[in-house]
Amino acid sequence: MTESHAYHPDRLLPVDPTTRDIARRLLNHVEDLPIISPHGHLDAQMFVDDAAFPDPTELIISPDHYVTRVLHSAGIPLSDLRVGSTEGTSPREAWRIFCENWSLYAGTASGYWLEQEFAHVFSIDPGRLNAEEADAVYDELQSVLAQPDFRPRALADSFGLEVLATTDDPLDDLEAHAKLAADPSFSPRVLPTFRPDAYTKMYNPGFAENVTRLIDTAGDGKTGFAGYLEAMRNRRQYFIDHGATSSDHGTHDAWAHPLDDAEADRILHKGLRGEATREEAYAFEGNMTYRFAEMATEDGLTMTIHPGVWRNSSRSALEKYGPDTGHDIPFQMDFINGLQPLLSDFGENPDFHLVLFTIDETTFSRELAPMAGYYPSVYVGAPWWFIDEVDAIARFRASTTGTTGFSRYSGFIDDTRAYCSIPVRHNTARRVEAGYLARLVAEHRISEDRAADAIVDLIDASPRRVFKL
Amino acid sequence: MTESHAYHPDRLLPVDPTTRDIARRLLNHVEDLPIISPHGHLDAQMFVDDAAFPDPTELIISPDHYVTRVLHSAGIPLSDLRVGSTEGTSPREAWRIFCENWSLYAGTASGYWLEQEFAHVFSIDPGRLNAEEADAVYDELQSVLAQPDFRPRALADSFGLEVLATTDDPLDDLEAHAKLAADPSFSPRVLPTFRPDAYTKMYNPGFAENVTRLIDTAGDGKTGFAGYLEAMRNRRQYFIDHGATSSDHGTHDAWAHPLDDAEADRILHKGLRGEATREEAYAFEGNMTYRFAEMATEDGLTMTIHPGVWRNSSRSALEKYGPDTGHDIPFQMDFINGLQPLLSDFGENPDFHLVLFTIDETTFSRELAPMAGYYPSVYVGAPWWFIDEVDAIARFRASTTGTTGFSRYSGFIDDTRAYCSIPVRHNTARRVEAGYLARLVAEHRISEDRAADAIVDLIDASPRRVFKL
Amino acid sequence: MTESHAYHPDRLLPVDPTTRDIARRLLNHVEDLPIISPHGHLDAQMFVDDAAFPDPTELIISPDHYVTRVLHSAGIPLSDLRVGSTEGTSPREAWRIFCENWSLYAGTASGYWLEQEFAHVFSIDPGRLNAEEADAVYDELQSVLAQPDFRPRALADSFGLEVLATTDDPLDDLEAHAKLAADPSFSPRVLPTFRPDAYTKMYNPGFAENVTRLIDTAGDGKTGFAGYLEAMRNRRQYFIDHGATSSDHGTHDAWAHPLDDAEADRILHKGLRGEATREEAYAFEGNMTYRFAEMATEDGLTMTIHPGVWRNSSRSALEKYGPDTGHDIPFQMDFINGLQPLLSDFGENPDFHLVLFTIDETTFSRELAPMAGYYPSVYVGAPWWFIDEVDAIARFRASTTGTTGFSRYSGFIDDTRAYCSIPVRHNTARRVEAGYLARLVAEHRISEDRAADAIVDLIDASPRRVFKL
Repeated sequence: MTESHAYHPDRLLPVDPTTRDIARRLLNHVEDLPIISPHGHLDAQMFVDDAAFPDPTELIISPDHYVTRVLHSAGIPLSDLRVGSTEGTSPREAWRIFCENWSLYAGTASGYWLEQEFAHVFSIDPGRLNAEEADAVYDELQSVLAQPDFRPRALADSFGLEVLATTDDPLDDLEAHAKLAADPSFSPRVLPTFRPDAYTKMYNPGFAENVTRLIDTAGDGKTGFAGYLEAMRNRRQYFIDHGATSSDHGTHDAWAHPLDDAEADRILHKGLRGEATREEAYAFEGNMTYRFAEMATEDGLTMTIHPGVWRNSSRSALEKYGPDTGHDIPFQMDFINGLQPLLSDFGENPDFHLVLFTIDETTFSRELAPMAGYYPSVYVGAPWWFIDEVDAIARFRASTTGTTGFSRYSGFIDDTRAYCSIPVRHNTARRVEAGYLARLVAEHRISEDRAADAIVDLIDASPRRVFKL
Repeated sequence: MTESHAYHPDRLLPVDPTTRDIARRLLNHVEDLPIISPHGHLDAQMFVDDAAFPDPTELIISPDHYVTRVLHSAGIPLSDLRVGSTEGTSPREAWRIFCENWSLYAGTASGYWLEQEFAHVFSIDPGRLNAEEADAVYDELQSVLAQPDFRPRALADSFGLEVLATTDDPLDDLEAHAKLAADPSFSPRVLPTFRPDAYTKMYNPGFAENVTRLIDTAGDGKTGFAGYLEAMRNRRQYFIDHGATSSDHGTHDAWAHPLDDAEADRILHKGLRGEATREEAYAFEGNMTYRFAEMATEDGLTMTIHPGVWRNSSRSALEKYGPDTGHDIPFQMDFINGLQPLLSDFGENPDFHLVLFTIDETTFSRELAPMAGYYPSVYVGAPWWFIDEVDAIARFRASTTGTTGFSRYSGFIDDTRAYCSIPVRHNTARRVEAGYLARLVAEHRISEDRAADAIVDLIDASPRRVFKL
Repeated sequence: MTESHAYHPDRLLPVDPTTRDIARRLLNHVEDLPIISPHGHLDAQMFVDDAAFPDPTELIISPDHYVTRVLHSAGIPLSDLRVGSTEGTSPREAWRIFCENWSLYAGTASGYWLEQEFAHVFSIDPGRLNAEEADAVYDELQSVLAQPDFRPRALADSFGLEVLATTDDPLDDLEAHAKLAADPSFSPRVLPTFRPDAYTKMYNPGFAENVTRLIDTAGDGKTGFAGYLEAMRNRRQYFIDHGATSSDHGTHDAWAHPLDDAEADRILHKGLRGEATREEAYAFEGNMTYRFAEMATEDGLTMTIHPGVWRNSSRSALEKYGPDTGHDIPFQMDFINGLQPLLSDFGENPDFHLVLFTIDETTFSRELAPMAGYYPSVYVGAPWWFIDEVDAIARFRASTTGTTGFSRYSGFIDDTRAYCSIPVRHNTARRVEAGYLARLVAEHRISEDRAADAIVDLIDASPRRVFKL
């Protein structure tokens, strides 16, 4: 039997022999650099507890909606995959469903990462992901997970994890982060990220309760919009004191037009009573995008925004399975009309770092690269969500470099809930970058020396610079 | 003299030798599979009559607005090509114009297909398409068309045609389809497709007459919107009884928000009196997109929609040459805002098949692949109209596969009025798929075995599955 | 030391050896053809004066906002680059900043052109652009610029410049153009272009003064909108008498819906009083786009439009540095809804030439190619601004050719203020075209003979045909 393609040393590199040779040399400069992950969705407590992962399904399938959505599209109810509920199907049964349907993943980003994860993290041949071997693989993986080398902290070492940012509620006490920072036996920096979405979207459930609690807890006795702003400032400072270097904003769209405080206060009170119109809610959210930028120019947090997604788009699926279960769908974006006031007021400030993520590729050459190629504050975020896959990363690079070069890039962002996929995701990005740069060299557009500098900068220096690490 | 490139066995395959070798092997698995054409615009009566095609111009030029628009863009009036009127220019004269201007087609999709058609269907060297040989080729092709082997039924055999769907008015009696189904000497399945556009767009001429006739004929005595819905259901059933497996909808945009029946009835009456506003007309159309989806969950017809085109955009050309003469121009699309209610109510149903076609490539990675990669009902339609050409098919594949893999694809759709182009269009798609998959194999992203399974699934199993053939 | 990649004879050509060989042969047909530049931003007076360029910074850095924006994005104030003001930094100091930051340009369009310019125009190895050699290169370039061979007229000869169009205010007396036309010692044709934007955008400062002067000067005594139209017609004729073959329009968007004259007159008067709403201003501008098309059908000027850019988007940068300093940002475009009335009335006229430029790549396959592939009046403009770089030109070609072939192209447009970049920009386009066509040949989609005809047509015949040169 031949070995799986997943082990091939030239995987993802260009096929043309000249270009591939260059790409190999470029990859050598970065393949073993430490991992810097300035945005993601792991739980810091995982490293405090350092417990063994319970089972393969809980590790790989149920919490990763990129994995479950593929099976769901084939007609498998998410509940069979232990999403929304753990009753009904056992972990082993869910695993069998996954293995039986493994061919659905061919060509997908998740399929590639999973194969790489099996091959390079768990040392299990991904060629064995099929109905016949489902149980054997399950048992084998279960026993791998029981080994001390596969607990979260040990994996952090073997992954070469240097920095990992989590995403946290503004009122989180960040106790886990504090413990990790104080623990001399744990070397990675695990940093919180200030994510205030639950306090800015009055069209979502829980807004009034959240905001009331925020103002009561952190508003220094002020009330209304003044208390709201004060509380936000205070909690940002609390995050900074616990190591945060960035805030993250999943805004509806890129609207960032300021309101005067009286108008913001009026809408806030309507929102607290559940009476704000959709237009008012968006105006309030857009005002806050502007205000958070203003705060960032004062407290120095890097600001990341990723607008343009209809969250939980299926009413029926939301009822059945809950939020974040795979039916967030992007819509078309406009950046410049939304961001113009923010950029006019803060855009020229090189100490303000604004990273723009998108799932709408059309904005790369049309808006993001032109903005990042002018404003010292603006960085183009790495391709994200559905477009953080091989061909899309290559398109991203080809769509932005002509305008921005290599210096306006956020660095690679894995944005993942799937811990064991982190090294393979970063490795994927490094290979795609090597392939892109190799093409520029092979076409005599840049020298190989310059390309070698560029790839090290992209992989290592960019995220440190942009996220102030 | 060297042979035309049109005969080269490696045409359209990747140039890189490693990738090309893989592509050749993959192509071998599918190049000779039967043709399944689940959507197109031929007339079923053609196979009943089985008459010889009258002349080269009538076969290849006049009815194909993709062919005539190229000449029109060069300043040739469509009337010189026997479009809108057969007076003035003779078929031979129109043919000469075509041959004199053959170089305009270089690089176009139509140019490639026509060359392939000459080379592989008519066995005429396409290198002879020029002013000097126009008459000789005309005569030679005329004599080819007179041969029994080039009548519609004989061609169906030589093309390997297994399934061909036509596109039909809801009130069509489908007599031709019935005759073909009852004819044991004719093996292809020729299936009708329910296309109700003329009854849903109150902004188009003829709406009131059409709808009145529909309700009178098939409404079971009911009137107003109730009669309208009843008639639609009845006619769908009539189509199903005559072999239909799908309905097709050239909607204005992707709006599919339901109205309550009283509102729909109110607008319908305004529309019948010619008094509906443009907004009401679109609301009515969007309601019907929703209602047809609802019906599809009951009667099982696969539903295909292809929104986002300004039909007959030139007022002056519409007056001079009539509709469908090449000036339908796409506009930018939004899918998720339009389809959200429909998908919330029916999207989770795997027995409901909704195929989304577009001519706006920007929606592939942004909306269509994310939707099809989650909803078990949603399939991404093959590139269509202006984008069913070599490079665009490759872009389509690279824009969707990372999110959806290969299982959410409609299968290739030729959508053509040009009968003799059918085999070459399908061959084109097979070659492009082979090239794409070969690249994934050469980059060690999937195994060649998996790629071989995938290409057979794409070409053969997908259309059968999606269109319930 | 190895020679810079900038000298490599195969630069920009495809890496695959088969394709590269074809590309080399195709390039040979066009690499040395004269330069036809039907749209740009040089000053005709430069050729009248024929003075030496003052210094490297004034020639290469300060006036080229594509060059300065890259440095600005790295946090360098534009004022340090002698933008907006020549106080503070000396030319030599600005040059040092440029050289110290040269690595920022790696991979950018400007970086490639600058390297080419150093290598092939100034014969200075671009590998010397660094902090250490900044002063030496400055001095060397200074002495190059002092040579008679590097004055504007001598350079025009060495560039092979045959036609160069400038962009001019409607009230310009075009004296420089007249002098050049009358000078038998100067062979290039330097043609004015009618650019009336300052008279159509009532939302911009100076509108009232400009229009008042226009009507007073050229309105033949008529007043109001009648005088305005008359003056436009008169000035167009004046331009035509001075050699102009085109008018150019940087419209807000593609809106081209006519107003009746009374309404236009009403809005014009509001605009002259500074009281027009933004909606009225856009309606007036859209009316004028329509009216200029109407005039073009009468006087024969080719009409070029390039909508969809937010000019001077940063309020603060506009105050600090002035207009046209790099913060013009594109937004998403819709062409067909805007142009439909214009195309319905004038689109079928092959003598009317309408060139559509865009910075929104999404419109290429969706709208521009479908329009240009039908309307004999419509041509797809070459990629422009941020997208006139190597990869974007390749995407443009791959996105339009399947629909339009090669005959509906404007020809390459350099659109530049940077005189010495003209030959390298045209050379870049020729190489990218050769690469694209070579791929079609290598994939057996067209014959090499056909490709050779096509590239000569693209480079030489297209701009002559489209701009009526």
